[in-house]
Amino acid sequence: MAERIVVALGGNALGNTPEQQLALVQGTAKTIVDLVEKGYEVVIGHGNGPQVGMINLAMEFSANKGGNTPYMPFPECGAMTQGYIGYHLQQAIQAELAARGIKKPCATVVTQVVVDENDPGFQHPTKPVGSFYTKEEADKIAAEKGFIFVEDAGRGYRRVVPSPIPKRIVELEVVEQLVASGAIVITVGGGGIPVVETQNGLKGVAAVIDKDRASSLLAQDLKADRLIILTAVDRVCINFNKPDQKELPSMTLAEAEQYIGEKQFAPGSMLPKVQSCMEFVKNNAHGGTALITSLSRAAEALEGKTGTVLTK
Amino acid sequence: MAERIVVALGGNALGNTPEQQLALVQGTAKTIVDLVEKGYEVVIGHGNGPQVGMINLAMEFSANKGGNTPYMPFPECGAMTQGYIGYHLQQAIQAELAARGIKKPCATVVTQVVVDENDPGFQHPTKPVGSFYTKEEADKIAAEKGFIFVEDAGRGYRRVVPSPIPKRIVELEVVEQLVASGAIVITVGGGGIPVVETQNGLKGVAAVIDKDRASSLLAQDLKADRLIILTAVDRVCINFNKPDQKELPSMTLAEAEQYIGEKQFAPGSMLPKVQSCMEFVKNNAHGGTALITSLSRAAEALEGKTGTVLTK
Repeated sequence: MAERIVVALGGNALGNTPEQQLALVQGTAKTIVDLVEKGYEVVIGHGNGPQVGMINLAMEFSANKGGNTPYMPFPECGAMTQGYIGYHLQQAIQAELAARGIKKPCATVVTQVVVDENDPGFQHPTKPVGSFYTKEEADKIAAEKGFIFVEDAGRGYRRVVPSPIPKRIVELEVVEQLVASGAIVITVGGGGIPVVETQNGLKGVAAVIDKDRASSLLAQDLKADRLIILTAVDRVCINFNKPDQKELPSMTLAEAEQYIGEKQFAPGSMLPKVQSCMEFVKNNAHGGTALITSLSRAAEALEGKTGTVLTK
Repeated sequence: MAERIVVALGGNALGNTPEQQLALVQGTAKTIVDLVEKGYEVVIGHGNGPQVGMINLAMEFSANKGGNTPYMPFPECGAMTQGYIGYHLQQAIQAELAARGIKKPCATVVTQVVVDENDPGFQHPTKPVGSFYTKEEADKIAAEKGFIFVEDAGRGYRRVVPSPIPKRIVELEVVEQLVASGAIVITVGGGGIPVVETQNGLKGVAAVIDKDRASSLLAQDLKADRLIILTAVDRVCINFNKPDQKELPSMTLAEAEQYIGEKQFAPGSMLPKVQSCMEFVKNNAHGGTALITSLSRAAEALEGKTGTVLTK
C-alpha cells in the first residue's frame, strides 16, 4: 500500500499577490507531483496568513471608506482564501500531473475546523489582522463590535484575534473518501475556517488556526505515515543564528522536549512546527514520523538526504 | 437506487450580504434536506452574481483608492465566492441534517469549468462587473489592461465580461466520487471558475458562466435523473405579466422551442433556465426530466403539485 503523506505548505509556497501566487504554485506543484511520482499518497494543508490579511484589509477598507460593499466577518474572509488559494494550487498541480502523464484528480475541499470556545487563546488574542486605527477609531469599533485592539509598535491600533487549538476537522469524512479514491486533496486551508459548536450547529469565529497544528490533526485523523512541514529552511537548528548553530538531522520526542525547555525554537515560528510534529508522532499508533524541511528539497528529505526527522 | 438530482440555486437562495446569506441559507438548507429526507441523492450548483460583484468591487476599490492591497483578477474573485458561499451553505446543510438526525456528509469542491476561447461570447461581452468609471478612467484602464467598457444607463462606464458556454467540469471525477459515496456536494459555484485550455494547462479568464447552464452540464455528466432549477417563481409562465398570463405545469421540448420562437422567455432571466433544462432533457439517455420551480416549493414540485416539468 502507498505511504500516505500530509504536507503542510507555508507562506513561501504561495506569496503575497495573485501574480506571485500563480508563479510560486508552479514550483510548489512540482514538489507535490515529485512525491506523487514516487508513489506517495499526498494530502495538502496550507497557510493563509498574507492572503486572509489582504482580503480582510480590502473588504474592511471598502466597507469603511465608501466602497459601498458590506462588512465581511473574519471567518468568511478565511473561507474566501480557501477558494482563492485552492484554485491556484489545484490548477498548478493538475497542469504538472498532465505534463508528466499522470492521471490523478486534484481538488480543494472547503473545510471548517472546530475549536473550543473555552480555549485559553480566546482570553488572550495575539494575532494582529486588518487595518491600523487611531485610538479613538479603535475604541469606537471595540465598543460597537466587541473586537480587541492592541497598540502595534507605534504604528497605530490593530485588531487581534486568538489562535485556538484545532479540535475536529468537520469535513474529514469527505477528505478521507477522496484520498482513499486516489485524489490529491487540498484541505484545512489557513488551518481551516474556525468554527465553534453551538446548539444550532457550527458558527464561525474570528480566529486564526495554526496551519501546522491543523495539518498535524489531519495527519493523525487520516492515519498518515508521515507529516511533512515545508518551510523556508532545510533543517531545524539549535542555537539558531548563533556562532554554534547546529542543524539537526533528527530528533526524538525526548530531545524535542529538551530543546523546547531550552527555548531553542521561536514561538510563532519553529516552535509550533516542532510541537505539531510531536503531536503527530505521539498520537500515531503505527510509528509514523514527522519531517521538517524546505519546499524545494522535500523529495530529497524523504530519502534522508536533508530535513529534520522527528521520531518517537 | 436513489434518484439523483442536481439542484441549481438562484440568487434568492443566498442574498447580498454575509448576514443575509447566513439567514437565507437556513431556508435553503431546509429545502435541500427535505429532498435528502425523501431519499434523493442531491448535488448542488449555485449562482454568485451579487457575491462576485461585491468581492470584485471591494478588491478593486481597495486597490485603486489607497487600501494598499493588490489588484485581484476576476476569476480569482469567483474562486473566493466558492469558498464564501460554499462555507455558509455546507454549514447550514450540516446543521439541518444534524437537527433531523440524518448522517450524511456535505462539502464544497472548488470547481473550474472550461470554456472555449473561441466562444462567440468573448467577441460580445455583455455582463457588467465592478465599479463605475468616467470615460477617461475607463479608456485608461482599457488601454492598460485590455478590458472592455460600456456606458451604463447614464451612470458611467463599466467593465463588461463575456458569458461563454460551459464545456467541461474539471473536477467532475472528484464530484462524482463524493456523490457516489453518499455525500451532498456543492460544486460549479457561480457557474464554475471560468478557465480556458492552454498548452501549459488551464488558465483563468474574466467571464461569468451561467449557473443554470453549468448545473445542466453537471446533471448531464452525472447522469442525473432530474435537474431542478430553483428560482423566484413557482412555475414558468407564458404571456408573463400580461392579462392572459398562463402558468405552465409542463412543457415538451417542441413546446419549449415554440415558446422561445414567440420570445415568451426573457433573455438573461427565464430563457437560459428553459434552455438549460432543454439541454439536459435532450442529452439524457435514460429519460431524465427537468423542473423549474421556487426554492420554497421544491419538494411539492417533485410530487407534481407545482412547478413546470420539461420532458422530451
